[in-house]
Amino acid sequence: MAMEINANEVDIVVSVTRPDPSFLEAWMPFFSPYHVIVVQEPELEENVKVPSGLNHTLYTKHDMERILGIGVLNSLGFRGHSCRAFGYLMSKKKYIFSLDDDCIPAKDPNGYLINPLEQHIVNLMNPSTPFFFNTLYDPYRDGSDFVRGYPFSLRQGVPCAISCGLWMNLPDYDAPTQILKPDERNTRYVDAVLTVPHGALFPMSGINIAFNREIIGPAMFSGLARSGAGKPLLSRYDTLEDIWCGLCCKVICDHLGYGIKTGLPYVWRKEDFGDPMVSLSREYEGVKWLEEIVPFFQALRLPRTALTVEDCFAEIGKQVKDKFRNLDPLFSEVGTSMEDWAKAWKAASS
Amino acid sequence: MAMEINANEVDIVVSVTRPDPSFLEAWMPFFSPYHVIVVQEPELEENVKVPSGLNHTLYTKHDMERILGIGVLNSLGFRGHSCRAFGYLMSKKKYIFSLDDDCIPAKDPNGYLINPLEQHIVNLMNPSTPFFFNTLYDPYRDGSDFVRGYPFSLRQGVPCAISCGLWMNLPDYDAPTQILKPDERNTRYVDAVLTVPHGALFPMSGINIAFNREIIGPAMFSGLARSGAGKPLLSRYDTLEDIWCGLCCKVICDHLGYGIKTGLPYVWRKEDFGDPMVSLSREYEGVKWLEEIVPFFQALRLPRTALTVEDCFAEIGKQVKDKFRNLDPLFSEVGTSMEDWAKAWKAASS
Repeated sequence: MAMEINANEVDIVVSVTRPDPSFLEAWMPFFSPYHVIVVQEPELEENVKVPSGLNHTLYTKHDMERILGIGVLNSLGFRGHSCRAFGYLMSKKKYIFSLDDDCIPAKDPNGYLINPLEQHIVNLMNPSTPFFFNTLYDPYRDGSDFVRGYPFSLRQGVPCAISCGLWMNLPDYDAPTQILKPDERNTRYVDAVLTVPHGALFPMSGINIAFNREIIGPAMFSGLARSGAGKPLLSRYDTLEDIWCGLCCKVICDHLGYGIKTGLPYVWRKEDFGDPMVSLSREYEGVKWLEEIVPFFQALRLPRTALTVEDCFAEIGKQVKDKFRNLDPLFSEVGTSMEDWAKAWKAASS
Repeated sequence: MAMEINANEVDIVVSVTRPDPSFLEAWMPFFSPYHVIVVQEPELEENVKVPSGLNHTLYTKHDMERILGIGVLNSLGFRGHSCRAFGYLMSKKKYIFSLDDDCIPAKDPNGYLINPLEQHIVNLMNPSTPFFFNTLYDPYRDGSDFVRGYPFSLRQGVPCAISCGLWMNLPDYDAPTQILKPDERNTRYVDAVLTVPHGALFPMSGINIAFNREIIGPAMFSGLARSGAGKPLLSRYDTLEDIWCGLCCKVICDHLGYGIKTGLPYVWRKEDFGDPMVSLSREYEGVKWLEEIVPFFQALRLPRTALTVEDCFAEIGKQVKDKFRNLDPLFSEVGTSMEDWAKAWKAASS
């Protein structure tokens, strides 16, 4: 497990929706060896004050228009925190770590501050094991292995595409659960990393996440931030974006033979004093739609001819336009946005 | 999670292959409220010395012959630790807890002795969630819940059939891994319980296990202890028995809509000073066969007409006879033994 991390292979990508991204201060000790891509939400007109001493590149709406063109930018949307996907597109690094602006470093049970980036990169550098479940969790961790009965032919694993970290303190609950359990905080540190098995879907959260950009970068986008271009940001399905992206990613990883890990590392999510009733009003469409979206992704089979992540992602976009036409007109825009993203990724890579 | 355990619904079942089952002494504080079924291995001719004060029933070869008849007993085999299945057949209780004779109570990170039975029963009394993975592990535990993005329609879960516990100190590694890592001990206490997702197979261990007998009892048998009736115990596939049983159970649970949990509780496995080279000589056939057995179970589909666990188990037995005829003649005996077990279970239940 002790592995050398090459800082030249890593970009940290953060989205900024407020002029003062002061949460970055808390991360300076851990981020200083790395390059940070700061993406300013296109609607934010003030100048962003990036903490001094941070090795960073700042991208604004002006850069997005210059690089993508106004037409493509309008299709991709990049409203709210989804603008971080522009940073994924601009990066040339192998590994990306991204986190929300309400996160600060968590402490492990011994009281030491956790460097989430290190654990994420270790998760990504070690293989995933989606084809058979290991009861001692990640078999590549120090002090662990494959248990008796694990077929030897499956022990080499497959490349790990995504590492999903967790959250101490504020768990990532939906608004109805927050309303029912306003005081519940996550205090349980579960010292485990595991691969989500092949065929199983899961609720991916973008709060604390890292991925291998060379493998899965073309799928780290939702298309749901498209709507609202030229209109006020629609937020009836707020927070569905990373869930949607996660469902796409899982289906694509299962199709192409990559793995997704979940578990360590933890970050600490600060109290946001947000009103769960307001969240509910932002989420209710998403909560309802999810009941139709999940069976779609459970049944989704990608054609054998879809051999790249770009192809798979565009194919899902195509099917979304067809399948969800009657659920909401928004989804035909979402499908187009997904297809445009796949094209933009191809263009940026070539 | 705080649930009242009714001692009248629980049997502890242990197999005894040595005249002095002194490991039971270590469990007296935890086992005293419960009834213990002690099954004496049919080849063991000495009288077993059960610790005084243990509320127990002892079954010997004489009882097996009397209850099953010599023909059925020969077919089921019950050699070695597999004889505990006779105890499952005799029990009339809802929940069974079974553990190996090299286990003593483990301590949690705060230094308190763990009562594994309590945690197992809580795991079994709460639903399983095989149809969507929850990143905060068992959503029914105190302090946890379903995370954002988990479809509400899947939150009621399905009945939990089996709870597989883990092991501190000696992990359950196969002989090749033991030879490579003779000093590796499991010291990581992972504070989690989770459902093995639908469609994913896993290496079930019988070392520390509990199950809902009313649901899955008819599948808690392997058929691999059949061979050797009238011959010395064949041990070329030693330790494959619970793995085989676990593959059957998982396929049946996936077919009938039940769940299997893994994780807490831990027991402490004592150093057994066994020679891994001897284990290797006992396991090599099993290790080799596993590479053919796992793809069989991955591809196995049970007919819609198999509506009970007995039917499913007998159906697998039938397919095993056909499918593995060329792998080893043993498997036609295994298939017959599985069919006979299903019949014996039906007879015992009626």
